This record gives sequence, structure tokens and C-alpha cells, in this order.
Amino acid sequence: MVPAGMKEIIIDIIKAGKISVLVTTGANLTHDLIEALGESHYHSDSWNDKVFHDKGFDRMYNVFMKNQVYGKIEEFFEKNWEKFRNSGNTRDFLEKIGELLPEGNKSILRICYEKKVPIFCPGISDSGIGLMVWGRTISGKKLEIDVFDDMKEIINIAWSSKKNGVIYIGGGVPKNFIQQSLQFSKGANYGIQITTDRPEPGGSSGASLEEGISWGKMKPDAKKEEDYIDVFCDATIALPLLWASVKN
Amino acid sequence: MVPAGMKEIIIDIIKAGKISVLVTTGANLTHDLIEALGESHYHSDSWNDKVFHDKGFDRMYNVFMKNQVYGKIEEFFEKNWEKFRNSGNTRDFLEKIGELLPEGNKSILRICYEKKVPIFCPGISDSGIGLMVWGRTISGKKLEIDVFDDMKEIINIAWSSKKNGVIYIGGGVPKNFIQQSLQFSKGANYGIQITTDRPEPGGSSGASLEEGISWGKMKPDAKKEEDYIDVFCDATIALPLLWASVKN
Amino acid sequence: MVPAGMKEIIIDIIKAGKISVLVTTGANLTHDLIEALGESHYHSDSWNDKVFHDKGFDRMYNVFMKNQVYGKIEEFFEKNWEKFRNSGNTRDFLEKIGELLPEGNKSILRICYEKKVPIFCPGISDSGIGLMVWGRTISGKKLEIDVFDDMKEIINIAWSSKKNGVIYIGGGVPKNFIQQSLQFSKGANYGIQITTDRPEPGGSSGASLEEGISWGKMKPDAKKEEDYIDVFCDATIALPLLWASVKN
Amino acid sequence: MVPAGMKEIIIDIIKAGKISVLVTTGANLTHDLIEALGESHYHSDSWNDKVFHDKGFDRMYNVFMKNQVYGKIEEFFEKNWEKFRNSGNTRDFLEKIGELLPEGNKSILRICYEKKVPIFCPGISDSGIGLMVWGRTISGKKLEIDVFDDMKEIINIAWSSKKNGVIYIGGGVPKNFIQQSLQFSKGANYGIQITTDRPEPGGSSGASLEEGISWGKMKPDAKKEEDYIDVFCDATIALPLLWASVKN
Repeated sequence: MVPAGMKEIIIDIIKAGKISVLVTTGANLTHDLIEALGESHYHSDSWNDKVFHDKGFDRMYNVFMKNQVYGKIEEFFEKNWEKFRNSGNTRDFLEKIGELLPEGNKSILRICYEKKVPIFCPGISDSGIGLMVWGRTISGKKLEIDVFDDMKEIINIAWSSKKNGVIYIGGGVPKNFIQQSLQFSKGANYGIQITTDRPEPGGSSGASLEEGISWGKMKPDAKKEEDYIDVFCDATIALPLLWASVKN
Repeated sequence: MVPAGMKEIIIDIIKAGKISVLVTTGANLTHDLIEALGESHYHSDSWNDKVFHDKGFDRMYNVFMKNQVYGKIEEFFEKNWEKFRNSGNTRDFLEKIGELLPEGNKSILRICYEKKVPIFCPGISDSGIGLMVWGRTISGKKLEIDVFDDMKEIINIAWSSKKNGVIYIGGGVPKNFIQQSLQFSKGANYGIQITTDRPEPGGSSGASLEEGISWGKMKPDAKKEEDYIDVFCDATIALPLLWASVKN
Repeated sequence: MVPAGMKEIIIDIIKAGKISVLVTTGANLTHDLIEALGESHYHSDSWNDKVFHDKGFDRMYNVFMKNQVYGKIEEFFEKNWEKFRNSGNTRDFLEKIGELLPEGNKSILRICYEKKVPIFCPGISDSGIGLMVWGRTISGKKLEIDVFDDMKEIINIAWSSKKNGVIYIGGGVPKNFIQQSLQFSKGANYGIQITTDRPEPGGSSGASLEEGISWGKMKPDAKKEEDYIDVFCDATIALPLLWASVKN
Repeated sequence: MVPAGMKEIIIDIIKAGKISVLVTTGANLTHDLIEALGESHYHSDSWNDKVFHDKGFDRMYNVFMKNQVYGKIEEFFEKNWEKFRNSGNTRDFLEKIGELLPEGNKSILRICYEKKVPIFCPGISDSGIGLMVWGRTISGKKLEIDVFDDMKEIINIAWSSKKNGVIYIGGGVPKNFIQQSLQFSKGANYGIQITTDRPEPGGSSGASLEEGISWGKMKPDAKKEEDYIDVFCDATIALPLLWASVKN
């Protein structure tokens, strides 16, 4: 999402107060941090992966970035390492990153900090940020993050809210993590899912919202089309359209 | 994979010594543990999610299971909790589960323990197993698993092996976790990817193996079709065919 | 396209003079004629096909129409049969239908007649219109349409134009028919393709525009992204966006 | 199908008497005729379309053929033109081609002639064969084929058979043509559909077999999974598996 230019829309939605909890991949947050630290993503519809490799570019379909961005993230963590030591879970750890970024910085991490929107990242170790943390830990600087504690917090949020509405973009661990918190609290009242994955292979990413009713991830009385809908479209096309239609 | 009946093929491949490291989702391991504890997955091409909900069945496309399986997992962890206390990372934690299962049990967790194949699960908290661990922790029984330590171990394995060959089934966090370990060690020499995801939306799951060359996840001199190949097919169809063609 | 509500956009593009030749399926023209004759398409995201069958509704994913529309088309052809007798090819036959519709009628068939935009329908017999023609012919009222003559006309158009630009929406026979006319004349200079089909299965519908270069369907010096582009998206989403961005 | 190597399986199924009527694209028959006349299809997973163009190769994803094959087809029609003059419909025309091929020739056209299996090709003009016919007609050698007459014949076959079972491979005009003949006769009792197209875009190719119940293309009492099934898979993978499982 971030490499494909969706950052500003996410920020816009957060500023408008429409997101209470954000669950995302480590990759999205890594690319957000990369831009927050002054680096960029580029676009090209032609590529040669060997040439990119030799020149130090990393490709994500038709987007790429300089491999040296990792140095910037490493430097950021090296400099601020002590501040992260007492992070209890990923929500706390990510909040601390947001706090360290300059005020007004156009990043998801910063805007969530400013707007007090908790970010959960259940697969945090599986990302550039995770790699940099690992880089510190091998030099003896341990960071204890209890990933099970995230589950506790998000279930509490789901339990205590009057109604729950979910927006799933693209599936994966974030979708499943949200669904688990709903299954073990009280189910979503509303839902929007944007994905190009199919239901037939049986994976969580392509599973229809309707399927969630059997699990209790979606309320049994939620009505298709009225309360929830599956959108079969690339999210970089569908999300701007959806946001444009509701923002005013 | 496990709910769709792929467990025995995975076990077969492990028994044949063809898998040195397994990285998988918490969901796969949860469903494997469910069957290891005597519960079952069922198949039906017709369903009504409200009826399934009322009767206590959880649906995964055309497969379903009884919701009460969670009780079995909970009981398992409750009974054996003390044995897990000193788990350092997910690999260690999962090995302990395998050790506790009866000898010869037809499960991935058990066979990996017997064959000394390490299992990594970077998104462990995002699963039924994760939920049961969380269930114990809220009653004060903390379990400290360092997810960043997994990264250290798998990078060491990738560094010290003579050659690396990868098989990605379906993408997600496991694919990205393996790719990271290769990017920060020495790249894969060979690769097979089985997925129905498309490259255009730009996500990691649908990314071609060729793209990995730019990152160093795949060796720059690896040749398409000769050294690596992207297979566009449901893995429950392609994996048995591939295995059948090489097993003898 | 027409059942999904794309008719007015197509009409808008034709009125703006942006389409010189239209090649389409018999289904699109049948649904266009159905609306031209006063019948409607309806939308619903819930359905029961047996109930629809009993009530006389025909479903196209989340769109449906009354089965009795066929009576209207039949009546139209019965009444005007003599006027179609001397149709030489599908272009001529379809022009005659457009001529018979009232002036200003909001239909593709009528607007093409008014704007002198030729319509070719190589698979005409495979449609509701084709069925009604067949219905007349079995009562001895033969209609001779030379489908090979269409090929002659469209190749002439492709040859005599200064430059050729193509827009393929969804593949099938219309795409292939246009590509043949370019292969046997002088290739397209520009191209846009909107489809959700994949290239891997090898069919014409999912084939990339780039592939056309080998055949001469696309000019060898046409540049990807600059001169031609493959858009992976449902056309009912992509086409309105594309048109909105160029119409002003 | 033919360029991808499926010809022999189709022939095998026809020889086993399992196909009573074949409806296919002009492309499939053209590639079948190309091989019948001694030319070949080649395979490569690497390509450069400009180089292929310069060297005279036409690419179909990872399959290609020499452009000069068109000369062979042209020659075939030039030599035998008079024999085709009295073809009434595509079934008759294609039967005549089969008759002209040498006995025992490994082609779909020949085996259908030998086994008296009618072939219908509603989009015949949209193919290499169509192009060659067009090439003759521009030199004044007209060929009158009544495409509406095909509809009459296939509806008669559907009406007079005791039960109808359909196998749709990949959608397009052939699928729709078969479905029309069922809609206007008595519906299919059994069905198998193999396609990678999705239902959501609303096209005929991706439409589920169940949808056909509303139209009367499938019998209202046909049961999903028991009487009909949608297979989401590349047909070059699924068809050999299906045939292997039933042939003995």
C-alpha cells in the first residue's frame, strides 16, 4: 500500500477520525518509516531485475526503492535504541516510533501517534523493521516484545466498543488477526473487504466476509450488501474511490 | 493446506528428507494440532453460514470443523503449560509441542520433531495456538517468545548451507520471512512458487520469483524455468502433482 | 457491459467521436436492444437461481432481467423482417437495426447509426439476436449474412486509417477479431486493454498487448506504458475512471 | 488448447466415444489444422516479442509457431476450394476439412470426421481459417456459410437427446453457444466447467454453472457437486487429471 502511493489516503482517513484501530503488515510500516526518514519510492513499468540488483534497487512489481534505505532505518534504531527497551507489545513499540518522528511528518506512524490510534503488527519480525531490531539484538541489545499481549489489547478494544466495523485490505495476517479478535469477543456489525484473492483455494485472504458468520467473526444477523460487502478489485483502485465517495 | 487435506503430502515430503526448514502460518499448525489431538476437518460444497454458526461449525471455503476443537487445544496447553515456559523462540516452542505428541502421530508438528526439521512461525500470535497462549497469559501465566530470535536462527541456517532452494506455497508472511532470511544471507539458488495471486496488485504473495533477484532474495545468475519457476495453480492441485513426479 | 450499466458511458464516448469502429459480442447488442425496446436490467446481490427460474428471471452474476424480453425482440424482428433481407454482413445488419430504432433512443445500436460508426459482431449467431433470427429462419424466412465479408471491411478500415489505436475490454471474439484485422493490415500504434484474465492459461483474452508485437497486431516500435498498457481491473470500474480522466 | 498440447487428450476422449458434439473456437481448429498439415508449435518460457516478430514467430504466452504456417493453410484451401462451395453451415464446412485430411491423421478435425462427431464453430470468421476463407472470397470465390443454421442443428441435437451433459473449457463463444442451445431446448442434466475466470466481472466465461439454472441452461433440479461442478484451474492441468481419473 505505502510503496504504491496509498499513504496519503490512509493518513487522510485517520485524520478524519474514521479509523479507531489499525492492524497492518511490518512491510507497510517499514515503507512508511522509509518515507518518514526522507527516502522515496519510484515507479517504472519496465525493469530488468539483474540491472536493478547491480545498481542497488529493490523492486515491488512496478515500484522500486534504493537498497540503501535499510541503512537509514538501522541508523534510526541505533540512535534511539534505549527508548524502545521497555516496549511491552507491538502497539507500544510502534507508538514509540511515531513519537520519535517530527511533528507533522507525513507518515502513518506519526499520524497514528498524534491521533492516538493504536497500531498492531502481529508479524512485526517479518519486515525491514524486524530485521533492524534483529540486527541490534545480535549485538546483545535485546528487545522484549510480547506478541501475545497484542491479542489481549485488541480483544479488549473489540469487547468494549458499542459496534465494530472492519475494513480488510488485501488479507494476510492483519485480516486474520482482526478476525480472531472478533471471533473471541463479539463479531463485526459491518464490513468491507477489498481483495483480488479468490475464495476457492481456501486461504484466509480470499475468504468471503460471509464465511466469517460461521466463526462468529461477523454477526449472524449482518446482511450481505447492506451491512457487509466483498469488493473484488486492486485496493489501489478501490480504496481511493470508496474514500472519495464518503469523505464529503 | 492442512484443512484441505495436504497434511499427508507434507509429511511424506518431510519423511523423504526433502525439507530442511519449514516456515508456515499459525493457522496451518493449529489445524495440524487439531487433527493430532483427534479432531477432524469435514468437506461440503454446500453451506449456510448462519446454520453452521448455530450448530457450532467454522467454515474455511468448502471445509469445516467443529468450534469445540478450541477446547481441545486449550486443554492441551493447560495440561502442559510448564513445559513451554522456557521457549526462547517459535522454533523452540513448536519443537516442544511436537515432542509432547505421541510417537508416530500423523502430524507435521510431530514428524518435524522426529526428523529434527525446524519449524518457524513468525505470525504465531495470529492463530488458534496464539489465542490459547493468550488465554493462559491473561491468567498470569506468561510465556516469553522472542520472535526476533527466529530471524537470527533462520539467517544462520541460510548462511551456513551450501545451496538454498525454496518452495513457496501461497505467499503471505511465511514467504516474506524466508525471502528476508535470503536477502540478508546469500540468496536462493533454486525456487518453485505455487500461487494463484497476481503480481499486478504489488503484494509480496503475488510477486514473481524473478523480482527477488533485484533484492538478492534469488541469486542474480539463477535462470528462469531452469533454476526457478512460478506455478499459477491452486496448491492443492499442483503440490501433489509435483511431488508425484519427483518422489520416485 | 450493457447489463452492468456501462451503456451510457459507451454512448458518451461515441458521441464524443472517440470510437471509429465498434466490435462487440452479440450479447452486448442483445441487451442494448432489450433496453432500446423498453425493457430493463435489475440489480441484486442476493439470489436463488431456482426461484429466479420459476419466476422467469435470467441472472448474469448480480444483474437480472425478465425472461419475457425475448418476446419483445422476437416481435421486433417479426415486424421488420423484410427490411433485413438484403443484409450483406453483420455491419450492415446491425446498422439496419439502429436505423429502425427511434431517433434519440439511448442505445448503442442507435447512436452508432446516427454517428455512422460501424459495428461488427463476428459471433452474431451466438446471442439472443442470433436466436431470434434463427427463429425466423426455421419458418422459412432465410437471412443471408456473410460473416467473412465483415473481415474484408474491417481490414480495409485498418489499412486506410493513418494510425490505429485499440481499446480491448474483456477479450473474447471481439478482441481476436480486431487483432486479426491488424495482423493482416498494419498493426496498432496505441492500445489499452482492460481485463481480469491472466496471461498464463494462454488464451487470447488474457494475452498481453506486448504479445501482439510478435504477430504484428501491435507495431514493433510501440512502447509499453507510453503507447500501450494492460489494465488489470474489472472494466465496469476501470472504464468510467479512464473516460472521466480524458473527457474534459 | 491445441497449441498448449491438449490435442491428443481431446482425440483420446473422442476415440473413447465420450464426446457427442464439439463446439470450439476458430483458433483451436486453425491450430489443429496447422499441425495436421505438418507444422508445429514450440515452447519457451523466455521471449522477446520484437525478436520473435523479426524472425517470423507468433507467440501465444509460452508457446509459439512460425508465421509461415498461414501459407500452408492458404495453399490447402486454394487447392480444395471447389469442395467447400456447397457448405451450408460451419458443421458441414468443418466436416469437409476433416474428410480431406489423410486417414489416421492425428487431428481433431479428422478424428471427428471419422467418428461422426459434429463440430460447430460459431465464431469461424474470427480465426486463421476464417482469414484464409476471406482471402479466397476477395478474389471473387464466395463461400456461403449460414451461421444461423448451426443454431438450428445444435438445438435439434439437444432436443432429441435423452440427457445432456456439458463440459465447458475456458468459456467464450463456445460456452455461450452451447448454453443457448440448452436454454432453447431442455437444459443440461450434468455439467463440468473448467475456467480461471471469475464470476464477479459478470461475463459469460466466468459465470457459474449454477447461474444457468435461472436461464434454463441447467436443469432446475441439478445438484451442485453431485450433478455439476465449477473447477477453478488452468484447463491444461485439470483436463488431463479428470480424463486420467475416468478413462479406465
